[in-house]
Amino acid sequence: MDQRIHEHAAVLVDWSARIEAGDDVVLRVDEGAHDLAVAVAEKLGERGANYLATYASDEVEAAFVGAREGEFEQDPGFEVAMLERADAVLSLRGQTNTAAKAAAPGERRSAYKKSRTRIKELRMDTDWVSTLHPTRAHAQDAGMGYEEYRDFVYDAVLRDWESLADEMARMKELLDAGSEVRLVKEDTDLAMSIENRTAVNSAASVAYDSHNLPSGEVFTAPYDPEGEVYFDVPMTHDGARIRDVRLAFEDGEVVDWSAEVGEHALDDIFATDEGARRLGELGIGMNRGIDRFTDNILFDEKMGDTVHLAVGRAYGDCLPEGQQGNQSAVHVDMITDVSEDSRLEIDGEVVQRNGRFRWEDGFEG
Amino acid sequence: MDQRIHEHAAVLVDWSARIEAGDDVVLRVDEGAHDLAVAVAEKLGERGANYLATYASDEVEAAFVGAREGEFEQDPGFEVAMLERADAVLSLRGQTNTAAKAAAPGERRSAYKKSRTRIKELRMDTDWVSTLHPTRAHAQDAGMGYEEYRDFVYDAVLRDWESLADEMARMKELLDAGSEVRLVKEDTDLAMSIENRTAVNSAASVAYDSHNLPSGEVFTAPYDPEGEVYFDVPMTHDGARIRDVRLAFEDGEVVDWSAEVGEHALDDIFATDEGARRLGELGIGMNRGIDRFTDNILFDEKMGDTVHLAVGRAYGDCLPEGQQGNQSAVHVDMITDVSEDSRLEIDGEVVQRNGRFRWEDGFEG
Repeated sequence: MDQRIHEHAAVLVDWSARIEAGDDVVLRVDEGAHDLAVAVAEKLGERGANYLATYASDEVEAAFVGAREGEFEQDPGFEVAMLERADAVLSLRGQTNTAAKAAAPGERRSAYKKSRTRIKELRMDTDWVSTLHPTRAHAQDAGMGYEEYRDFVYDAVLRDWESLADEMARMKELLDAGSEVRLVKEDTDLAMSIENRTAVNSAASVAYDSHNLPSGEVFTAPYDPEGEVYFDVPMTHDGARIRDVRLAFEDGEVVDWSAEVGEHALDDIFATDEGARRLGELGIGMNRGIDRFTDNILFDEKMGDTVHLAVGRAYGDCLPEGQQGNQSAVHVDMITDVSEDSRLEIDGEVVQRNGRFRWEDGFEG
Repeated sequence: MDQRIHEHAAVLVDWSARIEAGDDVVLRVDEGAHDLAVAVAEKLGERGANYLATYASDEVEAAFVGAREGEFEQDPGFEVAMLERADAVLSLRGQTNTAAKAAAPGERRSAYKKSRTRIKELRMDTDWVSTLHPTRAHAQDAGMGYEEYRDFVYDAVLRDWESLADEMARMKELLDAGSEVRLVKEDTDLAMSIENRTAVNSAASVAYDSHNLPSGEVFTAPYDPEGEVYFDVPMTHDGARIRDVRLAFEDGEVVDWSAEVGEHALDDIFATDEGARRLGELGIGMNRGIDRFTDNILFDEKMGDTVHLAVGRAYGDCLPEGQQGNQSAVHVDMITDVSEDSRLEIDGEVVQRNGRFRWEDGFEG
């Protein structure tokens, strides 16, 4: 077995999920994640935890969902009972066909998802972490060969997380203290308010309220954007490819938009509700192990030297106690490359120029 | 997908487990049983049941068990909670390496097994069924090619179970009414008492208290054997190959034994305890879909035209209420071919000769 699989398991169990002796840990194992499951089970054994592996195959689920008629039972008791007593749920994604769910009609899939609201909440109440074991199917989505994709995934996952968390803490401090952010690059000059908002240091660990491995972004919930922004990193939304998005904001709302590819998908997004035309998130990608777009949001939005904005729903964690942020049925991330000819300012001070942060060698204020 | 996988799933869900709408069904999925899991999930959907799939990988378990030091936690609560609320547990065996457990030391595996006593009991309290999806690893154990092995498995599983159950009921009636059984063939003339014993019609359905698919045997708990018996079907016990076993019984106990291969393993079995030298089971194999030895007891002991005897522990189901049968730490099945030059008598009347039962065409009383 590739030694990196063991290292991945160690990061997941120790850094991300902080598993301790006696913890009851549910492993959700995708069809293609077997090797990672073996390595994680070994680590759980070493830590003195208990494990129960579930088989999270999309193909099995789609066969069930597609065959069932009428209403799904709301939150079946045996799964609720298991999750109520679980301390952590580790999801080991690693599919053999990322389109497997298409075997069941979309409307049945939505109904099934709705019937599992409490099951999802219970999972979210544990020290849950989602990660990805590289499979050929995911390599295919990324447009990469298998070996090359494995290198890509392990570069993203096997970071010095402690030192990255420290670096991201600096960015969080700047954002927490700031009032206004301005992003300037090609076809882009966008200002937005972050006054009274709290940034999240998403350091791939439950200790940082961060539940994805890899992670590596700092995000907050901006409001009142003014100006224009160009997103040059491609994206897939609800199955639709979208490229080269340009948005114009006035008085905090999107007033104009275009895309070279998939403009109809943008039309749909902005027609969803009022909140879909306002900002929900500003994220600074700081994981330089992720150096290319792979059409997987778990990786894309953490890419080093990128900034992403989401239209739609804002995360409650970024808001003052008791206050609501932007509400919407959607949350759509769009990514822009800031590695060249760009700058990010907080209250008029440049904090990142051409990808370099102010605390880094080579930074030109 | 091979149509027979769908047929296998239908037999398992409908005939064997008798799944009904609203049932909470745990699917235990082996590494190599994915396709059967998909087909079973579809059937569960059609029946309106709920499912929770667990990943029963021996490799994952061995990694955990081998890594854990000290005591295993007794019956972890999250697994107990799940099983307490489950109506049925369907085990879909189908390994990719039948030796995978060897990765963990035997003594740790025993300790782990002991720590899961209640979990096993809870599973046994449900409408549980074990079946096997043909994999290359199982074909390898059977000494067969993959395609040929798949034919073999589906011949064994896809029977007309209703009519086989009826036929087996005839044999059960004869055994229940009888007092003494006598088996005669090459190097064999063995008499044993079955007075006051109740036979089990093992028809591969929870409705018959039969929990294996395939099944197809009628068994009871004989006692006081006298005479000699020769077992010409090979067997594997605790990893040891044993061939051509000959036993001699006097006053109900084994007094002499030999084997062409693996005699030391026999020595160990008979040294276990007193009960190991007495009989625990007489079984009549009646599944003619199983026509060859494949070194898998799930199949071997149900083979048509065979009779098996077990030394050691007797099943409580065969005994009068409140009475104990033979007690022992072991239960070792040994199989003899009765397709030629043989007869089985109950109270002096021939019920099977040269493989033909008395109710069949070609039977020569």
